[in-house]
Amino acid sequence: MKDNKPLPKWKNKLHEVIYEADTPSGKFFDILLFILIIISVILVMLESIDDFDEHHHDTLLSLEWIITVFFTLEYIARLISIKKPLKYVFSFYGIIDFLSTIPLYLSYILAGSQVLLAVRAFRLLRIFRILKLVKFMGEASQLQSALKSSRAKIAVFIYVVLILSVILGTIMYIVEGDESGFTSIPKSIYWTIVTLTTVGYGDIAPQTNLGQFLATVIMILGYGIIAVPTGIVTAEFARNKNNSNHEDDDGFMVHVNTQACPSCGIEGHRDDATHCFNCGHPL
Amino acid sequence: MKDNKPLPKWKNKLHEVIYEADTPSGKFFDILLFILIIISVILVMLESIDDFDEHHHDTLLSLEWIITVFFTLEYIARLISIKKPLKYVFSFYGIIDFLSTIPLYLSYILAGSQVLLAVRAFRLLRIFRILKLVKFMGEASQLQSALKSSRAKIAVFIYVVLILSVILGTIMYIVEGDESGFTSIPKSIYWTIVTLTTVGYGDIAPQTNLGQFLATVIMILGYGIIAVPTGIVTAEFARNKNNSNHEDDDGFMVHVNTQACPSCGIEGHRDDATHCFNCGHPL
Amino acid sequence: MKDNKPLPKWKNKLHEVIYEADTPSGKFFDILLFILIIISVILVMLESIDDFDEHHHDTLLSLEWIITVFFTLEYIARLISIKKPLKYVFSFYGIIDFLSTIPLYLSYILAGSQVLLAVRAFRLLRIFRILKLVKFMGEASQLQSALKSSRAKIAVFIYVVLILSVILGTIMYIVEGDESGFTSIPKSIYWTIVTLTTVGYGDIAPQTNLGQFLATVIMILGYGIIAVPTGIVTAEFARNKNNSNHEDDDGFMVHVNTQACPSCGIEGHRDDATHCFNCGHPL
Amino acid sequence: MKDNKPLPKWKNKLHEVIYEADTPSGKFFDILLFILIIISVILVMLESIDDFDEHHHDTLLSLEWIITVFFTLEYIARLISIKKPLKYVFSFYGIIDFLSTIPLYLSYILAGSQVLLAVRAFRLLRIFRILKLVKFMGEASQLQSALKSSRAKIAVFIYVVLILSVILGTIMYIVEGDESGFTSIPKSIYWTIVTLTTVGYGDIAPQTNLGQFLATVIMILGYGIIAVPTGIVTAEFARNKNNSNHEDDDGFMVHVNTQACPSCGIEGHRDDATHCFNCGHPL
Repeated sequence: MKDNKPLPKWKNKLHEVIYEADTPSGKFFDILLFILIIISVILVMLESIDDFDEHHHDTLLSLEWIITVFFTLEYIARLISIKKPLKYVFSFYGIIDFLSTIPLYLSYILAGSQVLLAVRAFRLLRIFRILKLVKFMGEASQLQSALKSSRAKIAVFIYVVLILSVILGTIMYIVEGDESGFTSIPKSIYWTIVTLTTVGYGDIAPQTNLGQFLATVIMILGYGIIAVPTGIVTAEFARNKNNSNHEDDDGFMVHVNTQACPSCGIEGHRDDATHCFNCGHPL
Repeated sequence: MKDNKPLPKWKNKLHEVIYEADTPSGKFFDILLFILIIISVILVMLESIDDFDEHHHDTLLSLEWIITVFFTLEYIARLISIKKPLKYVFSFYGIIDFLSTIPLYLSYILAGSQVLLAVRAFRLLRIFRILKLVKFMGEASQLQSALKSSRAKIAVFIYVVLILSVILGTIMYIVEGDESGFTSIPKSIYWTIVTLTTVGYGDIAPQTNLGQFLATVIMILGYGIIAVPTGIVTAEFARNKNNSNHEDDDGFMVHVNTQACPSCGIEGHRDDATHCFNCGHPL
Repeated sequence: MKDNKPLPKWKNKLHEVIYEADTPSGKFFDILLFILIIISVILVMLESIDDFDEHHHDTLLSLEWIITVFFTLEYIARLISIKKPLKYVFSFYGIIDFLSTIPLYLSYILAGSQVLLAVRAFRLLRIFRILKLVKFMGEASQLQSALKSSRAKIAVFIYVVLILSVILGTIMYIVEGDESGFTSIPKSIYWTIVTLTTVGYGDIAPQTNLGQFLATVIMILGYGIIAVPTGIVTAEFARNKNNSNHEDDDGFMVHVNTQACPSCGIEGHRDDATHCFNCGHPL
Repeated sequence: MKDNKPLPKWKNKLHEVIYEADTPSGKFFDILLFILIIISVILVMLESIDDFDEHHHDTLLSLEWIITVFFTLEYIARLISIKKPLKYVFSFYGIIDFLSTIPLYLSYILAGSQVLLAVRAFRLLRIFRILKLVKFMGEASQLQSALKSSRAKIAVFIYVVLILSVILGTIMYIVEGDESGFTSIPKSIYWTIVTLTTVGYGDIAPQTNLGQFLATVIMILGYGIIAVPTGIVTAEFARNKNNSNHEDDDGFMVHVNTQACPSCGIEGHRDDATHCFNCGHPL
């Protein structure tokens, strides 16, 4: 309860700029962050092209330094402008923010800079937060809830597909053998999934008549069972739609804004809210 | 307002022939145009086949000249038979019509005739206008409105797919390396999309065990998430259908014809309309 | 009207056996026909395998002779046991039956026996008639009516896909050029459709960066627009289901049998019908 | 009726542990079984990797012995703790259990140990029983009933796809010939299914212009008709959902548990059941 006193004014201002997108400066900050993330990921891509990296290594490094410095400052600002920094540090986005900041520092300690490339690519995940604040909130949450409620059915489906793949893969391994590229059961299972999902690379392909016949069966199977996840998700979408129509009668729909509670960081407050619905802290 | 006087009679006649499809001459003109566009595109294809082009270059060029002259005359006729030519020039179909006319002229000015081939293929887009006038209006608009209303959801979906591809592509780049063809992150992202969309060329394919395992995960992911756009569009179709049934009760459905306003060029007038619903010009 | 007298008794009996499946002998005839068709198609397959054909050419030929003789007799029986043979000869199944009979005879006249192989494969189409008589009538007709009522929408869809393929194919031809296998625009369009439909052979694959980027766009496009035909057909299925429920209230559902009119050959008579609903001939 | 006396107490206890999952010891047994099955299948995979098998053959064999002994004991326990062992032996899971036990014993009798690998992979099917007992019962049964009721439609669909494949495959064989890999009609049909299901390996690909044109038609066909099974299953899912909602009004939903009848082995008893609903044996 003693935590309940408001933040000092300048921290409050900083909080508004960094965590929210309702004020002009908040919007500007989000757009700047968005652009920097995109640039940062393009840098990662360019660095991976050997030709390009050789000729422009220094430019790429300098730009990465600028972005790292900005991300470092931003991370510090996020820490000091929130009341419960620890909660932020161990939240999903807190970890992503931290990982976005450290790759360049780590590259001076660790040798294998390859893995750090991947860490830098994870910066893209930060975009989800920005978009969540700005746009598509309703659409994305509708998608999410449809997927969530069909989660169990999809799990059963994937589970059946996997068991099928193991059994069919083992049979194909016995039928085809080493000559056609089915050198082991795991490789054979890999081929089965490539076929069942209708990807079909062709790096491994059955050569024997029986193998090709079985492949045919697997393909038609895969072609048919793709209907199952589609059916599940579609039925869920249709149901969700009906439900949300019903909500107009039974419940209420209120407008929420992008404000985040300065104390606990929770989002989705009503436009007319004066206190956080989670911790009661004044907004 | 002073523009509101009708066009001279011969221009009016020309307008009817070129812009509308309700009169026999208008229909004939549309069919002629349709055939010429198809021939023109076939010419483009034949010209691209080196063998064929060598032996029949002169014939192809003459035919292209005939079509270009016809398109030029048609473009001029369109300009003079409409009241506000500038509006037409900068409309979508105005630009397409212009681009359909110029490639042959440009080929004498510019050297790189390759790009002009593409411009000539764009003539196909003109077919949409003819079809819009003649047929399928209802069906196409139903498709269009279903896609339009699920636009935001599809955008979110494609956005998530892209982010996923970048992150998974980066991981695959680190796992596989140069030997398997994953020479850079962009190439690796290209492979990821090839796999996620179940296209699966096989020009690049994972060779390591870990890489093949990850590929398996990506495939099943792609196989599963294809359900999402399908679910979205299907739910939208089903809703649209219901809505259009409701419209029978609440609103009205009127028959529109293919007449275009001679002044502003807008289409979709009611059968019994005497004035343009957009600019008030008499029809 | 003078045609309206019944067939002689033995012809009537023959008609029942050949054209209907309600009597034991009619059922037996259908099953025999079914087996012969399947054997005949297997013979075609075996003949196409060079190794097998070399060693068993005489056996294959004798079996084909047996089947051809049976089909010839059956064709004659069909002709004499129906009142209006000409109508049968020029009906869809009449032509299929005729084509099923002649390949072996023709092979002694014509040299290119390759094409006759295809004609023999068409015998498979005869199975549809047998199945229509025996089973799945309701299911198949439901599928058919759903596809029929979404025909126009699917036509618009395929039309848009084709135009898209031509334009994208032309662009890819210009971007990629001969080195990557994009040797002409038709070949390039072939590749585009291979990609758009997520088949992805990999016999032609983009090599340039821009080409791979465009390929990525085409893939995601293809991955997304597959939702459209699915949405159309699903919505139609759902609607059909509702409609058929409504029919219970408004209309009537009657049981039909597999009897065919001995005069005009039309099928789908009510169980309690005594006269053909099409020509009035007594059943 | 004389069979109706309960099992001796220790057998009853054993029955509860092995066949049910409601008691802590029953749950523990199921989890142990689950882990052993997974390990057993991983052993099969590792054994198929030549490199790994060479270095760790003895370890793999010992582990397989441990699992085989456990499965043997379990099979015996299942036999003695059920009243009608013969019914169990010839039930689906009875046969799977038996096949899971014997491969190692057989390997000392039979030489071709390859086929035994497949038999060992079938152990995975046992997992379905465990899962059926523990979880996902509702979800899986919903999937199952939707698939069951659309079975006839899917059969018609697959049937049409197969006939189409044979006819199109024969045509492609004639068009393409041996040079492109279309060496026989069965191989050509294999290619057609690879294309129609949008798998597209690319091991066989058309080379002639006509062949590529036909391939294009097949692809668009395959791309379009994938909508059919999806439409069928989706409509069925939607209907099932509605039906199950109706059931709330008309019928009753009761909670069932994982208890299996000690006499006849049937499952799905109501929570408050005291006698088997199938054979009347007390639970």
